[in-house]
Amino acid sequence: MTAMEFSSAEMPRMAANALRAIAMDAVEKAKSGHPGMPMGMADIATVLWNRYLKYNPANPRWLNRDRFVISNGHGSMLLYGLLHLTGFDLPMAELQNFRQLHSKTPGHPEYGETEGVEVTTGPLGQGIANAVGMALAERWLAARFNRPGHEIIDHYTYVFAGDGCMMEGISHEASGLAGHLGLHKLILLYDDNLISIDGPTSLSFSDDVPKRFSAYGWHVQSVDGHDPEAVARAIEAAQAETGHPSLIACRTIIGMGAPNLAGTAKTHGSPLGAEEVAATRKNLGWDWPPFKVPSPVLNFWRENRGRGKRAEQEWKERLGAYRKAFPEEGKELARIVEGRPSEAWVKPLQALRATLKKEAPASMATRTASGQVLDTIAMMHPDLLGGSADLTPSNNTRAKGFEDIAPGVFGGKYVRYGVREHGMAAVMNGLARHGGVVPYAGTFLIFSDYMRPAVRLSAIMGTQVIYVFTHDSIGLGEDGPTHQPVEHYAALRAIPNLYLFRPGDIRETLESWEAALKRTDGPSALPLTRQNLPTQPGTGEGGVAKGGYILADAPKGKRLRVLLLATGSELHLAMEAREALAKSGIGARVVSLPCWELFEKQPPAYRNQVLPPRIKARVAVEAGVSLGWERYIGMDGLMVGMKGFGGSAPYLKLYESFGITTAAVVRAAKKVAK
Amino acid sequence: MTAMEFSSAEMPRMAANALRAIAMDAVEKAKSGHPGMPMGMADIATVLWNRYLKYNPANPRWLNRDRFVISNGHGSMLLYGLLHLTGFDLPMAELQNFRQLHSKTPGHPEYGETEGVEVTTGPLGQGIANAVGMALAERWLAARFNRPGHEIIDHYTYVFAGDGCMMEGISHEASGLAGHLGLHKLILLYDDNLISIDGPTSLSFSDDVPKRFSAYGWHVQSVDGHDPEAVARAIEAAQAETGHPSLIACRTIIGMGAPNLAGTAKTHGSPLGAEEVAATRKNLGWDWPPFKVPSPVLNFWRENRGRGKRAEQEWKERLGAYRKAFPEEGKELARIVEGRPSEAWVKPLQALRATLKKEAPASMATRTASGQVLDTIAMMHPDLLGGSADLTPSNNTRAKGFEDIAPGVFGGKYVRYGVREHGMAAVMNGLARHGGVVPYAGTFLIFSDYMRPAVRLSAIMGTQVIYVFTHDSIGLGEDGPTHQPVEHYAALRAIPNLYLFRPGDIRETLESWEAALKRTDGPSALPLTRQNLPTQPGTGEGGVAKGGYILADAPKGKRLRVLLLATGSELHLAMEAREALAKSGIGARVVSLPCWELFEKQPPAYRNQVLPPRIKARVAVEAGVSLGWERYIGMDGLMVGMKGFGGSAPYLKLYESFGITTAAVVRAAKKVAK
Repeated sequence: MTAMEFSSAEMPRMAANALRAIAMDAVEKAKSGHPGMPMGMADIATVLWNRYLKYNPANPRWLNRDRFVISNGHGSMLLYGLLHLTGFDLPMAELQNFRQLHSKTPGHPEYGETEGVEVTTGPLGQGIANAVGMALAERWLAARFNRPGHEIIDHYTYVFAGDGCMMEGISHEASGLAGHLGLHKLILLYDDNLISIDGPTSLSFSDDVPKRFSAYGWHVQSVDGHDPEAVARAIEAAQAETGHPSLIACRTIIGMGAPNLAGTAKTHGSPLGAEEVAATRKNLGWDWPPFKVPSPVLNFWRENRGRGKRAEQEWKERLGAYRKAFPEEGKELARIVEGRPSEAWVKPLQALRATLKKEAPASMATRTASGQVLDTIAMMHPDLLGGSADLTPSNNTRAKGFEDIAPGVFGGKYVRYGVREHGMAAVMNGLARHGGVVPYAGTFLIFSDYMRPAVRLSAIMGTQVIYVFTHDSIGLGEDGPTHQPVEHYAALRAIPNLYLFRPGDIRETLESWEAALKRTDGPSALPLTRQNLPTQPGTGEGGVAKGGYILADAPKGKRLRVLLLATGSELHLAMEAREALAKSGIGARVVSLPCWELFEKQPPAYRNQVLPPRIKARVAVEAGVSLGWERYIGMDGLMVGMKGFGGSAPYLKLYESFGITTAAVVRAAKKVAK
Repeated sequence: MTAMEFSSAEMPRMAANALRAIAMDAVEKAKSGHPGMPMGMADIATVLWNRYLKYNPANPRWLNRDRFVISNGHGSMLLYGLLHLTGFDLPMAELQNFRQLHSKTPGHPEYGETEGVEVTTGPLGQGIANAVGMALAERWLAARFNRPGHEIIDHYTYVFAGDGCMMEGISHEASGLAGHLGLHKLILLYDDNLISIDGPTSLSFSDDVPKRFSAYGWHVQSVDGHDPEAVARAIEAAQAETGHPSLIACRTIIGMGAPNLAGTAKTHGSPLGAEEVAATRKNLGWDWPPFKVPSPVLNFWRENRGRGKRAEQEWKERLGAYRKAFPEEGKELARIVEGRPSEAWVKPLQALRATLKKEAPASMATRTASGQVLDTIAMMHPDLLGGSADLTPSNNTRAKGFEDIAPGVFGGKYVRYGVREHGMAAVMNGLARHGGVVPYAGTFLIFSDYMRPAVRLSAIMGTQVIYVFTHDSIGLGEDGPTHQPVEHYAALRAIPNLYLFRPGDIRETLESWEAALKRTDGPSALPLTRQNLPTQPGTGEGGVAKGGYILADAPKGKRLRVLLLATGSELHLAMEAREALAKSGIGARVVSLPCWELFEKQPPAYRNQVLPPRIKARVAVEAGVSLGWERYIGMDGLMVGMKGFGGSAPYLKLYESFGITTAAVVRAAKKVAK
């Protein structure tokens, strides 16, 4: 059989085989990778990408494109194959360079490395939640911009997921939320291939997945994933469903096409081997050498370029009409299309800053301060979408004027995420990656542990999401050790590219929000107190933007002998200690260090001015473990902090009991000053 | 109505009201806590604890007791009320001291603080998974010890859980596993009260929970949680079920009894207030002052002391008969009853150590080394129960001789946890807290993020669980940044009471396992490499037990000028750098630091000998972020490590690309030596 002989009936099969061949050949060449998933889902992908998915290979950032996510990200070669064949900027040379240094085809899809990759996936289940976020963003923007006769935002979000995704808890959290909200433009294609790395899923997995999703309120179908027409009918039925997200459980054979290994775990995470690759070629009737796709097949795939171009063009015309009919909204939409951040919130924030400079409350919890900042700016920031994992009254995340997003009602600015911290964080990643949304949401700092895999992904992707982490230490008091973060500052500071802001009073809180909102290329986290903190003189002068600054120098006439470093709720202890030390004749400088990551980006001259290298007498005070503080206090410094887990008691008793007090800072300072 | 007038029909209601009154009064006195759950679940608890639960208040550690866990741990006062009323060692004075410093009644139940508390709960959903672990431990010990006519292990595990638990992903993972395995002696009583902290659950939660659990393969019932007879019938039906775990969805009213606040979120996490407390007393017909329980009610509850004593006595007689019939097994069982760890594994391990001293492989991945250690000792350690989250072929956790635990078949020594890292870790906590089981299990180090909340709880509880974390750095190569830990050593070192062992070759791997197995009072984590590491001269002499040690001192004749500190896969780089430095005339000492936590427990004299304070020229090398290393290298030292996320490429390319090489260590050493 030669290329020219394909009938139109044969073409979909050959088109799918092109995906199979590319995937197995790339894995073979890399000697590493996962051929099983691409070979198993090739038929589904072929139907979806040629007949339904709306995208323009020439403009991967078209706002109203359908979103496509592979949650089973180890099957990255399927996505790379699709991007190449449909004409995205991904030449075959890149596919031949699969999993090699600086290629555009890393082992798992990575946002920012490859045009057309919507989101970084790989850690299982994340992609499902990302897709929920994208589908929510679509409904939210639709509610914001669509007008009768102008359905300017109206795309689908498709997500592929495997058994592993379905086992992960995050799939439960995100799917429960999607079912609750009725995100009907979300369509999940489940690769039900009965195989995981250990072997048959029957080793560990007996869920009736369709029943489970039906319990979440999803529309559910089951089909043969190798029957293109059945898959097509299911996609159409899913599109026709207008009240519920859709699950299409596709029974597939992993490694489909490999005559000896298909249907086994051996195709999951290893190359097939030269012999089986050859046998697969024969079995599939795929006569071409590695990485060669015959023209008719390539042409078939490349028709999507024209289809996509026309689709975007048609939308642009609708956008033009929209902008004429609704100039104000149109301007905002154009801003989002161009990816420009809103600055409407800046003025009100500066006004609040000016007010707080003149008169700040004597004391206030930083979670309350955060709530005040949000009350001032949140309604003024059109892209801001708030939420909490069922701790709204504690997190103070629901700003004045906010309405809830609710089932089928997407006009509000507040998401009730439920007790689903992990799902929340991953949904936020999806919201942010969709575009047009700057998501923030709250929980207790302790539960950052539940969210950690998704927080990490926001940092890898450089996605603007803002985590509001209240109840940030033993200062939460009676709830006790299970709810008291002690290692969490260190653990979050360890994540590259995450900015951690721990403000010490209302003015530092405002500046932390300001920095987080300005930071459009990465995530920020704000640990905030439950308890009141006294407002400090000298805050609010822009210090937070530098990460660390001299809040109060050695009193006049006193030689600088000790550096006192502090963050957040312990800042006032350092300030009090400075005064006490002055009475003992010791000059101490207080350095506020709310954001280490920003401080470390400052020029050495500035850092050395704030923390003069010659002053080795240093004390750090923070209600957390010392790990990491040695960077600033060295081997000669002392840390006033936590050595183990907290306790259950009113918070002042705990501070006393764990020795995190002004007196302890003074003692430590005197010791190091000697 | 006076105390003496209760009819036997009234008694259960008054017994439940005693729980309600104690809970609301304790929260009122503490001005902090959660009265709603105890008041809502009081009727269910009264039925369970008086009619079904098998326990002996005089011996909370009786091995064959039923296990009882409240996963909705904020309702701790329900548990404290039960423990007090049934006669555990928890006097009323402690309940009056609820949430105060050093009381036995902390805000959330904490294992080790209060007799009768099986497990520390509070972070939602954890308790469900702990209970799955306990139920699995029961079945496992039953398979191990029970003989025809001698059902010596045969208890139930009951768990209370709320809406929040049901929303958390961990509930999905653990319940899916329990359904798969058919843990029929697990009975979950779901407090279906339709309220969470934000308000009605309809704000965020639409799951059909019974349907969802039915999809997991559970036996499912729904009852009125305030109808004691209906609850009793459901418990009996659940006990009668012999193939599946049971969910009993109990429709309840949160804060039941409070005339104005019952059924609202206001009872969830705050005191009712003096007025509502008084109104509740009236409404319940509870005429007694705070913390006063009338004698007939107390007597009714205290009858459980006799019931419990008889139950344990009867079991002891069965144990006696068992020990006569099966002396070998009986001896082992007696060891477990007494809580003594097995030492059967020590000799084979020492034999392997001796062999490796004489002849070790020239190079080996530490994950392979770990597999070899397990092959040698795992079948010899009778309490050891292995597993993996679907990465068995990568983790090398399935030792020679192991059989799988499978649905209804519990005789094996290996659990196929599925792709459920979080559930796995929390199930391990339950296995360990049950007694008779030392659980270990594997996944990739990157996925320690998924497990983190449960890892933290193992550290709080001081529970012996062992985490096998393979693929521990950029050394995993092609899978790329999403799978490459860089911040995880720091993040895990930040958790108090967790020992992190990062061995540098096969002999350090053996010693890490030895230390982890000996450590019966807390968790250990073993990051292990995917890639081969050369075996180093000087390892295997007991250094790991001290956490850090001099592996190679400055060569003879060379003055010690630089300290090179390293762990794991970078140890050999330090060793190679030492040789290169010697050629340049610089004397360098290599310090292996596989376990910081153990090193910090050594006397200062030892630590100062290993790391002489006078030597400030120090270089650390580890394929992770520097956070924390400043503790050992100070402000003058240098770190050869990662500054951001990894990349996708063969691993040696990555080491080269990120500058983690012998040459880089040499350069850094020369720089600091100046």
